[in-house]
Amino acid sequence: MKIVIAPDSFKESLTSLEVASAIETGFKKVFPHAQYIKVPMADGGEGTVRSLIDATQGNLISTAVIAPLGNTVSATWGLSGNKDTAFIEMAASSGLHLVPFEQRNPLKTTSFGTGQLIKAALECGIKKIILGIGGSATNDGGVGMLQALGGRFLDKDQREIQLGGESLQTLSKIDLTHLDPRLKEIEIQVACDVTNPLCGPNGASAIFGPQKGATAEMVQQLDHALHHFSTIVEQQYHLNIREQSGSGAAGGMGAGLLLLPNVRLQSGVEIIINAVNLIKQVENADLIITGEGRMDSQTAQGKTPAGVAKVAKYFNKPVIAIVGSLKEDYEVVYDIGIDAVFPILHQVENLDVTLKKGKENLISTAQNIARLCQLTVFKQ
Amino acid sequence: MKIVIAPDSFKESLTSLEVASAIETGFKKVFPHAQYIKVPMADGGEGTVRSLIDATQGNLISTAVIAPLGNTVSATWGLSGNKDTAFIEMAASSGLHLVPFEQRNPLKTTSFGTGQLIKAALECGIKKIILGIGGSATNDGGVGMLQALGGRFLDKDQREIQLGGESLQTLSKIDLTHLDPRLKEIEIQVACDVTNPLCGPNGASAIFGPQKGATAEMVQQLDHALHHFSTIVEQQYHLNIREQSGSGAAGGMGAGLLLLPNVRLQSGVEIIINAVNLIKQVENADLIITGEGRMDSQTAQGKTPAGVAKVAKYFNKPVIAIVGSLKEDYEVVYDIGIDAVFPILHQVENLDVTLKKGKENLISTAQNIARLCQLTVFKQ
Repeated sequence: MKIVIAPDSFKESLTSLEVASAIETGFKKVFPHAQYIKVPMADGGEGTVRSLIDATQGNLISTAVIAPLGNTVSATWGLSGNKDTAFIEMAASSGLHLVPFEQRNPLKTTSFGTGQLIKAALECGIKKIILGIGGSATNDGGVGMLQALGGRFLDKDQREIQLGGESLQTLSKIDLTHLDPRLKEIEIQVACDVTNPLCGPNGASAIFGPQKGATAEMVQQLDHALHHFSTIVEQQYHLNIREQSGSGAAGGMGAGLLLLPNVRLQSGVEIIINAVNLIKQVENADLIITGEGRMDSQTAQGKTPAGVAKVAKYFNKPVIAIVGSLKEDYEVVYDIGIDAVFPILHQVENLDVTLKKGKENLISTAQNIARLCQLTVFKQ
Repeated sequence: MKIVIAPDSFKESLTSLEVASAIETGFKKVFPHAQYIKVPMADGGEGTVRSLIDATQGNLISTAVIAPLGNTVSATWGLSGNKDTAFIEMAASSGLHLVPFEQRNPLKTTSFGTGQLIKAALECGIKKIILGIGGSATNDGGVGMLQALGGRFLDKDQREIQLGGESLQTLSKIDLTHLDPRLKEIEIQVACDVTNPLCGPNGASAIFGPQKGATAEMVQQLDHALHHFSTIVEQQYHLNIREQSGSGAAGGMGAGLLLLPNVRLQSGVEIIINAVNLIKQVENADLIITGEGRMDSQTAQGKTPAGVAKVAKYFNKPVIAIVGSLKEDYEVVYDIGIDAVFPILHQVENLDVTLKKGKENLISTAQNIARLCQLTVFKQ
């Protein structure tokens, strides 16, 4: 029997590899001779770099970059075991958690640091970058990122504009001729699961600005700035980045990335599925086990278990999900191919204790699932 | 497929019938055509009367009795559907919960009310009483109960002694000639899962006195009083109630009951198993589902799931337990025949919310267990 264990991480408790290992431990108590394949999964959100490193026996690398407000931070990214692929989470270099609450101001924050990480990856000679863009503090249309990579953004006096979303209002001309030439040789897969356009009532500023510290007035200002940016892009490059689905992701990072060669915005989990070669493993498996920290109706919208179940169902394989917690509205996951779901909570305890018991409860739950699978009663 | 659902109640959340119904609801979503037999179970503790009434289509009856400190309370007991059997919990008439915390004093508390309930049952023409003796406020050796049934307990001046454990010290003579004669015609099965003797360091006063409000001094006083009581019994009836296993249960109620005809102290769950005819249902079942509010290593010591599993394993049937919460040390239940255990908790929530969600979480858990059972992968 071949069992593929492909869970997401349990946020604040266990990495996806740790989750997979705990499930394996529990199952092995009952089926010691089964073949277990652990595939640490992610969906482009938090924990994606860790999962991809674990899945490819890669390494973590730290690079000093400019944080959203201009100070320097050490940002961590990943390199696959074969050195071909870089794994970058925008949050590591331009994340909201890097800006103290009282200083949050998307007029000023820049995505420059993420451009520096891409540059650091280029230095390593990679062929592909997988870039997760969730959790950013920025609303600068990805312009900071482009500046770090050699793009020039000039005002009417031919001077480089300031960093931050506000300055886009003064943009007069874009010059991409000095972009790092290695960008043409590589592919960038951007894990992007939002479909918001760059501007307007569903745009980056209106939808994501407030959680980054924007007031109503700032939202307006930022929306105008991004609109102006996209107008210049259209004039110079005949490229409509304003309406494109996903261009509003990460403060317009989705739009800015479209100015680079060989960039694709894709479903996060599908990028990861390809990166970890999940299809090859599932094809001849007997059972697929997935999981995530918290399962609810959103899970069906492209989170890790949804992606795993989609692959599994293509090959008509059974899928069990083991989860940290399970919200009332979860049952839609049955429709996307998850056959049964088991939360791991064992006792009424506070969140802190519960998170600490993650591994133990996972092992126990997996063991009981395996014991149930072993019963002969339903073998008919 | 025949599925027997025989759980205990989930204390403070659901009766055992409600638990069984929720499990049935969850399973029916997956196996709508299976035959479901719901057997509300108990082990002689809290909830036993409710379970037995539900199991026998019986009725609840209220009777005014004397509470442990002499005031009057309305106590509830049960009569089986066929009117043959009375179900009595001592706690209903002589329970610790009937005495306000600051008034708890086992020198004074009496088991008289429980004797009144037995008398009320006799009035109904029953042939058998199932009596659960957990949770009492008393330490009177069951003498109050015997007084209510016509027993006379006299001091050296031939006057009836006072109610309460303290007065046993003044006991000089017992006269059981006026005991209700109907007691000879019936059988009393006492659900008793403790093995403590009446007196000494493991006796009623030393072990259970303190939780009923006894100080160290009172424990000594009560232990002497019970010892004196047992000496009189031995002198008059050549009956050693002092050493007998279980005689120390419920403040010596175990000992006092031995002065009645046709009384047997038995394992609670075994009494219930017989009363609800569990064996007949399990014999030709395909699957047994049991459960309880909180499962831990104590479960293996004669709690409901242990009793159910024992019957099931005699017939070599698979047993699944569904529980409200699951303590770390639970795995010994595998050794007593429980094949797999699933706690129903879905989210990290406080106890209050969790108790309210009991039904919903049970249905969901049962459904997922059934969905797992349905998978074909392990049918080999």
